[in-house]
Amino acid sequence: MSHHLKAAIFDWAGTVIDFGSRAPMGAFVEAYKRFDVDVSVAEARKPMGLPKRAHIAALMADPDIAARWADAHGALPGEAEIDALYAVFVPLNTDVVADYCTLIPGAVAMAEAVRARGMKLGSTTGYVRPIMDRVLPLAAAQGYVPDNLVCAGDLADGRPTPLMMYRCFADLGVYPPSAVVKIDDTEPGILEGLAAGTWTVGVSISGNCVGLSHEEWLATPDEEQAALRAQAEDTLLAVGAHYVIDSIADLVPVLDEIEARMARGEHP
Amino acid sequence: MSHHLKAAIFDWAGTVIDFGSRAPMGAFVEAYKRFDVDVSVAEARKPMGLPKRAHIAALMADPDIAARWADAHGALPGEAEIDALYAVFVPLNTDVVADYCTLIPGAVAMAEAVRARGMKLGSTTGYVRPIMDRVLPLAAAQGYVPDNLVCAGDLADGRPTPLMMYRCFADLGVYPPSAVVKIDDTEPGILEGLAAGTWTVGVSISGNCVGLSHEEWLATPDEEQAALRAQAEDTLLAVGAHYVIDSIADLVPVLDEIEARMARGEHP
Amino acid sequence: MSHHLKAAIFDWAGTVIDFGSRAPMGAFVEAYKRFDVDVSVAEARKPMGLPKRAHIAALMADPDIAARWADAHGALPGEAEIDALYAVFVPLNTDVVADYCTLIPGAVAMAEAVRARGMKLGSTTGYVRPIMDRVLPLAAAQGYVPDNLVCAGDLADGRPTPLMMYRCFADLGVYPPSAVVKIDDTEPGILEGLAAGTWTVGVSISGNCVGLSHEEWLATPDEEQAALRAQAEDTLLAVGAHYVIDSIADLVPVLDEIEARMARGEHP
Amino acid sequence: MSHHLKAAIFDWAGTVIDFGSRAPMGAFVEAYKRFDVDVSVAEARKPMGLPKRAHIAALMADPDIAARWADAHGALPGEAEIDALYAVFVPLNTDVVADYCTLIPGAVAMAEAVRARGMKLGSTTGYVRPIMDRVLPLAAAQGYVPDNLVCAGDLADGRPTPLMMYRCFADLGVYPPSAVVKIDDTEPGILEGLAAGTWTVGVSISGNCVGLSHEEWLATPDEEQAALRAQAEDTLLAVGAHYVIDSIADLVPVLDEIEARMARGEHP
Amino acid sequence: MSHHLKAAIFDWAGTVIDFGSRAPMGAFVEAYKRFDVDVSVAEARKPMGLPKRAHIAALMADPDIAARWADAHGALPGEAEIDALYAVFVPLNTDVVADYCTLIPGAVAMAEAVRARGMKLGSTTGYVRPIMDRVLPLAAAQGYVPDNLVCAGDLADGRPTPLMMYRCFADLGVYPPSAVVKIDDTEPGILEGLAAGTWTVGVSISGNCVGLSHEEWLATPDEEQAALRAQAEDTLLAVGAHYVIDSIADLVPVLDEIEARMARGEHP
Amino acid sequence: MSHHLKAAIFDWAGTVIDFGSRAPMGAFVEAYKRFDVDVSVAEARKPMGLPKRAHIAALMADPDIAARWADAHGALPGEAEIDALYAVFVPLNTDVVADYCTLIPGAVAMAEAVRARGMKLGSTTGYVRPIMDRVLPLAAAQGYVPDNLVCAGDLADGRPTPLMMYRCFADLGVYPPSAVVKIDDTEPGILEGLAAGTWTVGVSISGNCVGLSHEEWLATPDEEQAALRAQAEDTLLAVGAHYVIDSIADLVPVLDEIEARMARGEHP
Repeated sequence: MSHHLKAAIFDWAGTVIDFGSRAPMGAFVEAYKRFDVDVSVAEARKPMGLPKRAHIAALMADPDIAARWADAHGALPGEAEIDALYAVFVPLNTDVVADYCTLIPGAVAMAEAVRARGMKLGSTTGYVRPIMDRVLPLAAAQGYVPDNLVCAGDLADGRPTPLMMYRCFADLGVYPPSAVVKIDDTEPGILEGLAAGTWTVGVSISGNCVGLSHEEWLATPDEEQAALRAQAEDTLLAVGAHYVIDSIADLVPVLDEIEARMARGEHP
Repeated sequence: MSHHLKAAIFDWAGTVIDFGSRAPMGAFVEAYKRFDVDVSVAEARKPMGLPKRAHIAALMADPDIAARWADAHGALPGEAEIDALYAVFVPLNTDVVADYCTLIPGAVAMAEAVRARGMKLGSTTGYVRPIMDRVLPLAAAQGYVPDNLVCAGDLADGRPTPLMMYRCFADLGVYPPSAVVKIDDTEPGILEGLAAGTWTVGVSISGNCVGLSHEEWLATPDEEQAALRAQAEDTLLAVGAHYVIDSIADLVPVLDEIEARMARGEHP
Repeated sequence: MSHHLKAAIFDWAGTVIDFGSRAPMGAFVEAYKRFDVDVSVAEARKPMGLPKRAHIAALMADPDIAARWADAHGALPGEAEIDALYAVFVPLNTDVVADYCTLIPGAVAMAEAVRARGMKLGSTTGYVRPIMDRVLPLAAAQGYVPDNLVCAGDLADGRPTPLMMYRCFADLGVYPPSAVVKIDDTEPGILEGLAAGTWTVGVSISGNCVGLSHEEWLATPDEEQAALRAQAEDTLLAVGAHYVIDSIADLVPVLDEIEARMARGEHP
Repeated sequence: MSHHLKAAIFDWAGTVIDFGSRAPMGAFVEAYKRFDVDVSVAEARKPMGLPKRAHIAALMADPDIAARWADAHGALPGEAEIDALYAVFVPLNTDVVADYCTLIPGAVAMAEAVRARGMKLGSTTGYVRPIMDRVLPLAAAQGYVPDNLVCAGDLADGRPTPLMMYRCFADLGVYPPSAVVKIDDTEPGILEGLAAGTWTVGVSISGNCVGLSHEEWLATPDEEQAALRAQAEDTLLAVGAHYVIDSIADLVPVLDEIEARMARGEHP
Repeated sequence: MSHHLKAAIFDWAGTVIDFGSRAPMGAFVEAYKRFDVDVSVAEARKPMGLPKRAHIAALMADPDIAARWADAHGALPGEAEIDALYAVFVPLNTDVVADYCTLIPGAVAMAEAVRARGMKLGSTTGYVRPIMDRVLPLAAAQGYVPDNLVCAGDLADGRPTPLMMYRCFADLGVYPPSAVVKIDDTEPGILEGLAAGTWTVGVSISGNCVGLSHEEWLATPDEEQAALRAQAEDTLLAVGAHYVIDSIADLVPVLDEIEARMARGEHP
Repeated sequence: MSHHLKAAIFDWAGTVIDFGSRAPMGAFVEAYKRFDVDVSVAEARKPMGLPKRAHIAALMADPDIAARWADAHGALPGEAEIDALYAVFVPLNTDVVADYCTLIPGAVAMAEAVRARGMKLGSTTGYVRPIMDRVLPLAAAQGYVPDNLVCAGDLADGRPTPLMMYRCFADLGVYPPSAVVKIDDTEPGILEGLAAGTWTVGVSISGNCVGLSHEEWLATPDEEQAALRAQAEDTLLAVGAHYVIDSIADLVPVLDEIEARMARGEHP
């Protein structure tokens, strides 16, 4: 059997675009901005996991945010203000995705290196297709154009099932699965690669596990960086990632190492 | 202006198919069955709202279910059994939808009556299209074929936004929105109709608010039926439904009443 | 409610491309050219409203055109020449559209300004999709790429019904209609916006109402310009346009004014 | 060369469905009905050729219709009534197509006979695809399902150009054009067949040339029938139809005759 | 892991339709028929493997066929007759597929049994999609409707690569591959199942290996049947088929046996 | 009738891309390279016409190739090595197409000249669509973007039938066929043009008839060039090409000559 990798399949948010995977928080930030109140992504993220209206209620209960609201509107926010903010938030929920499409540093060079090895470059995402119809041209304008795209809603089920990976194999014309590598910043994304029988590489710093913007990350003290990195690596290794790297900028040496293992007869 | 309704747009599960909107619980029931343990939909529904693995852990902790598991397997279930059941559950999650496609009684006669009035018959759903590709032929075989279908994932956002309704107007060629009526068993479904400017009719008994199969409902004592109905009606009226009926079998008189109000110049 | 516009939806010919909306006359000009006779767009437009063969017969009866024909062919045109010209004209009817795709001055800057406000940029047209398949890349090469496109033939009915607008709302994910503005150079185009509940802005000078090329317009004396502008404005205001501007180059201040009215609680 | 016909390509309205090609008039009839005034198709057809609002004004000016309006509403119709009727008419324009989908007598037997000869059965139409999406299931329910369908708006140009015929050849896999026959009730439909190099058969009685419903035709005295038939035949033969028959019920003997000519080496 | 099969994926010609996989020979038979000469499928198959014109030349050189030709045309066939037959043959090549669509006995009962086990029913084929567009309704009319279809030309490569199988997994929502079984009458079809990691079942009698019509097979003496069966079984087992059965009518016991092996922890 | 050509329809490999039409041989070259053995396209082409595994066996039997294999692996190749190489070859078969997409010199200038004459630029190919999905962006990046594309598998039949040409006429909106010219490097490609009634131009040097890369061609001595050219021209003229040129770089004068003949009333 050949010991060459034939394709790399990448997640989008937190892996190739949107350093810190911050789009989901962006709608909260933007909704507050429409009421002339500044809220940071870090603040918006705090109540994560609550239903959306409860999330807003929790933000309104934050003393700092409440104080800024009072400054802007002359009174502390109550139930009516929560409702008003929620009404503005709902349509923003998907609108802001386009504002979080900046490529993660190194994406274009990585894509070129992958193709120069004769590999195809596939992609899967948890966004639905109409959202990706907005994202694709923005990524293309920055130089990133994958060979295929499978979206949430295209198939009967998504991550962590292997269905979107099987569709990639068929789209790209690559097999066996052991000649493919999946790169992702989340646990379900690593699991979808494993379920399909591919090699898997987690990205720790640029993704959802850390959740900081590139600027915030660069401004983080070294020890704190180390702790955040270690926690993210643990999370992704725990579900079975074969490798974890800081970001896709570090991918190429891992491809070399995987091919070396393939040459020794190893499988994922 | 004309005082005729031009289209009725129906939700699917709990409104036209799947009395009690029980498909989401069906995967739990089926997963247990694969381990030779009977669990009812009512039992499966109890921990509703938890993440899926926690949901299974809660079911395993139920004394009755635990006892049945011990009967079948010779020991009480532990973490390994939760993991095993979860592994079987995940792919079933979407598979069982096809098992919950029986039309709600009266659906075919209702559809005929709607068309006999010269109205179009549209539909929206929270299922993704590959799931509906399985549901459509099963509904058609029972005699129900709507004029269009908008699925989750077709558009950038779904309920409670009005986007799927706008797509229906364009697909069906109907306007203004005040000549359209939306029928649904859930709050987001009523809200999507209101957001688009249509009349809205909630269905209480056949849907998610009550959650019983048709057989279970018929076997429920009268007072309990009355209490369940009242609670469901309150839920749907609270978000703004113009009418609430037991099921689509009762729709036609409401259409008459809406047209009478239109003739008097009223709007939704 | 938010007082921000969420989308602007533009017509194509006469609004964004083809200053003077001259493509429909272009086939007559080109057909004569194939017989070595020069006819201007202004001459070709004179018999407007007649069936196509009768239109050609009327042109042949024009003394100036007849004289030029006689110069080129040695004899005045008769029935056989009308037939010959008609046979050449028919296939040209849609072919020449690609020759009339130059962007109206200011289109690119206007599109950038619209997007910089966070608005989406939709489009509808009376051309069928195979025609637009030729137009889109030509507009893109000049820098104009809208977020969606709804063509004649895509839906059961077109202008002045609101159906193509509803499709835009669904495609772009925007609502309510009062947060959208329609820009068009014709009466049915303004009516489609009004029927859907949006703000409407007519364009007078660049469109069908005046019918001059940009060069011809610039060469027109001031008084005549004023008269043509006034007549076009009257036409568009008469069917209900909220605003009329010379061309899309003047759109941005109108968007400001609409948002100011929205902030005061006004609706279209 | 083989002397067998390989495909027959049929128009829809007036040829296979809608005896008398009456759908375009149906919207006027239905609009009056919404105002409780009966107008016949024959009455509605009288002002044919006018723009739609002018058409309505002309109908309102008809003494018989005006009298019926006065009976129903207590006063003769004026400009306001013309506007009101026009507002109701516009959306009906395409809606009524579904009411004029009855197969022309003999259609199913004709289709079976065509297929029993080993011929494919194609179709082209002047309706846009969303309209045909409504028509197709209604025709199928009566037993008529062609092998393909090309609609107005599918291609850059329609009749009388041969483009829709070329698409049929490609869809059906048939060639050369001289092994195909086009059947149509209108002049542009015959011309599209001739332009593509096929045999052409006009239908006189069931189509637009006569314009009567099947019942009306049967009730027409013999001499009048003869005159109407003669005029329709002249119209279709004048543009070059190889044959003219009363309706598709009479098609099979013509196919025999064409094949006999093909066997003698003749071409269309 | 579950020990239930989740899907069966069937080839078409020789497996579910067209007993003996005789369509490819049908065009030769039909072409001769157009020249009033009867040739059997068995005769037509003899020169198999030659280019098409050479194939015809070889048939013309067959003494029996040549004699029949002379009877019909008064002279033995020469180069001109080979050319004439070839010209008729080319377009028939794909046309006759529709004449070879009869379901193999037991297909409908087998499909029902598969679905009654909760399995999905997928399909792949070496025919291109426009051919299958003709085959699908003919199979449906006999009661056979698979849940998906992947055709030659849909993907970059076909059999024996696993790409069409991966597309089936994604379409049907089934995994892992070890819960799927492929059924086929040819070696490349068995290989495509093996390459994708599924169980494989060959069909010997109904397929290409034997090449007889159902009637011919029934009329074959027992010993000859045994020899043909043995040879076909050897062919399919040689490339790795897990099981070989006479036809799909015998599939269900094999499914039982595979599930029994899965319950014992075996894999394909 | 007009005497202008309306469209030119080009084949891809050997006509516009892939000088020498070498992609089919590229998979053999690449497969050997994976085993560290250099084989030239010319060597790979020698056994042309054999089934793929037999082709590889023939290459292995070539003394020069066998010697190189022995150098690299320490032993002459046997059956096991043929199997190993075949296993690597199969997936490469379609993969290497992307490596043979360089435009033939003069393609961009030719395309510009065609369009400057007001002609459309169509294309047909024997590759399936998923292969062309890879080729199109590579050709576009070099400046070649045709107005349409018809692939093998899009229609029920391909070359030498005229079906793909009819689809081009419909896509491009061009007619009659006598106003179209087909350009191709192979006999079936010339025949498809003739069958559809168009002018045909063969290309001799850049295509499959000669089979040399551009560099190899330039390095070929003059007499040998003359002999290769003469043989290729004979091949293409024998099936009826109206003209044969060295490559598309020489097309424009032929278009002039065809239009001159059209002006004199000539047809293809």
